[in-house]
Amino acid sequence: MSSILRRSSDRDATAPPAPLGVALYGCGTVGSGLVQVLRARESLAGRVSLDLLHVVVRDIAKRRAVAHPDGVLSRALLPPIDDPRVQIVVELIGGIEPAHTLIVHALNSGKHVISANKAVIAAHGAELESLAAQNRVLFKYGAAVGGAIPILHALRGPLRHEPVRSIRGIVNGTTNYILTQMAEQGTSFEAALASAQAHGFAEPDPFADVSGLDAAQKIVILARHAFGRWVSLDDVELTGIDRVSADDIRAAHAEGASLKLVADARMDGDRIRMKVAPALVSPNDPLYAIRNEMNAIVIDTEFSGSLVFAGPGAGAHPAGSAVFSDIAAVARRVAGRRGS
Amino acid sequence: MSSILRRSSDRDATAPPAPLGVALYGCGTVGSGLVQVLRARESLAGRVSLDLLHVVVRDIAKRRAVAHPDGVLSRALLPPIDDPRVQIVVELIGGIEPAHTLIVHALNSGKHVISANKAVIAAHGAELESLAAQNRVLFKYGAAVGGAIPILHALRGPLRHEPVRSIRGIVNGTTNYILTQMAEQGTSFEAALASAQAHGFAEPDPFADVSGLDAAQKIVILARHAFGRWVSLDDVELTGIDRVSADDIRAAHAEGASLKLVADARMDGDRIRMKVAPALVSPNDPLYAIRNEMNAIVIDTEFSGSLVFAGPGAGAHPAGSAVFSDIAAVARRVAGRRGS
Repeated sequence: MSSILRRSSDRDATAPPAPLGVALYGCGTVGSGLVQVLRARESLAGRVSLDLLHVVVRDIAKRRAVAHPDGVLSRALLPPIDDPRVQIVVELIGGIEPAHTLIVHALNSGKHVISANKAVIAAHGAELESLAAQNRVLFKYGAAVGGAIPILHALRGPLRHEPVRSIRGIVNGTTNYILTQMAEQGTSFEAALASAQAHGFAEPDPFADVSGLDAAQKIVILARHAFGRWVSLDDVELTGIDRVSADDIRAAHAEGASLKLVADARMDGDRIRMKVAPALVSPNDPLYAIRNEMNAIVIDTEFSGSLVFAGPGAGAHPAGSAVFSDIAAVARRVAGRRGS
Repeated sequence: MSSILRRSSDRDATAPPAPLGVALYGCGTVGSGLVQVLRARESLAGRVSLDLLHVVVRDIAKRRAVAHPDGVLSRALLPPIDDPRVQIVVELIGGIEPAHTLIVHALNSGKHVISANKAVIAAHGAELESLAAQNRVLFKYGAAVGGAIPILHALRGPLRHEPVRSIRGIVNGTTNYILTQMAEQGTSFEAALASAQAHGFAEPDPFADVSGLDAAQKIVILARHAFGRWVSLDDVELTGIDRVSADDIRAAHAEGASLKLVADARMDGDRIRMKVAPALVSPNDPLYAIRNEMNAIVIDTEFSGSLVFAGPGAGAHPAGSAVFSDIAAVARRVAGRRGS
């Protein structure tokens, strides 16, 4: 019975659980943000005790935003997972491979896995969730959509019994930054993209953002939690912003609207229809006021009306904090299990 | 170990738990909404099995939005709690007494309690949470603030380790409806209040809404979950909207702003400062576009930036759905306990 209470505890002081060993894959923007959040919170709270044993990177010599103790950085892909002290594997390298291989190996090795990798989750989510269930470990990816916005938590938690009619939103900060700059500064697509890259919002290769692929991966993940089943990325009707011109933006403004890259999933009979495309958004739409790298998601429900969630969709600290939240949730779950 | 997996399951099919006995106190707007949601979801999901054994009301003869089977309606205050089949007590009668007495009796009798009563929680939250802990039962009140907006869930769940700097928002739908009508239709305060009452947003006695007391109770509850401790309602600096004139609204418009009743809590050194007052809100503020009975809450955090949550803050179905969400969470917790 006491485990019920432990799970319902919150910011109140509770006994700190024993430290959990963590292996982190990838130490770019999000990984560095996570390490900074981990270090800040260790001193802040001490309620979740973590031991960052391995940080696996492609290039050990590269200069990084955060320093690591000797022996923590490595390039070896699978050995850190096999370290018996490691209980949680955090995958932040992005892309399908080697991310897929290492997540499968971690789950099959009985390690809890946290990922922020929308590409691998949109492509292999059903398989990975099933592997996690078979191996009785947790697989969490709250940071894969919406950065720090706890949208997946809301869908899996308080809204899990709420029938969802549609879910739509601005889920790619780079394209929203570009469209905002084009509209507000009158810059060209190319200049706005260069500015996004200079601000660190856009990858050196902006294809996934600009083509709408990144948003399509995210709407697949949102649809899974809004409607209860995995859908194929191939079923997303996809139009990027690469052909949006200054004239299109001006025409939208002339109509009193703004042009946004909107991802949308909705029930149509038994089918889930998904679409990512530039769309005219009117001032009454909660998406209208979402500027620059901000994200927003609107859920239309049967009983709870329209719910809106907005916040920074990208950035080292917001994304790092979202990953930390998943790690902390796993740590509490493991602590609860130990005690029950 | 299997209980970990059960708790992480979601919309996927899982074995339904045995039905849980529920006693409902109060069957006004929210209570009727809850009963409708309960009935709709029984056929929809069947994943949480509930047996509504008692519905306690002041006036049995009154015509109600929903009908109940024979023997369910009663006026007896404490006997339904003592029914050994009752495991969950839902308190929706509002106000301090007899709500406080019945919640205390329920917790001390080992029953889980769900309440949407911001008055009793703002006044006695610390005592009631402590009683729940002593009796090893759950005490949930997600519907007390923000209606269907899962703001308390977010603060207690994914954001629980996130240092919060401030939390502010529009948390009273009635006053926001009145101010919106005054601004958009040019109506007087009195006419807008009458319209709110005709739409069912305002109580026959609008004092708690108009004076800001309702918003003050809600900011006390938000502060408890944002900052980790209970504060006194007396510490809220309080100004209502009863003295807002059409001229004030026009003056706000002339400045390009809108006038909103804003509740605010923020850390100031070790102190939590709380305030409810009409405030000028600029177009860049996420609260600017929140019209009529909608609510919105903005959390300013150290790592995750500014997060915005918006949705219907009132109404039978949104509020009923929020109560249902708490009931379902208790039911899952109890089912998990049975199985572990």
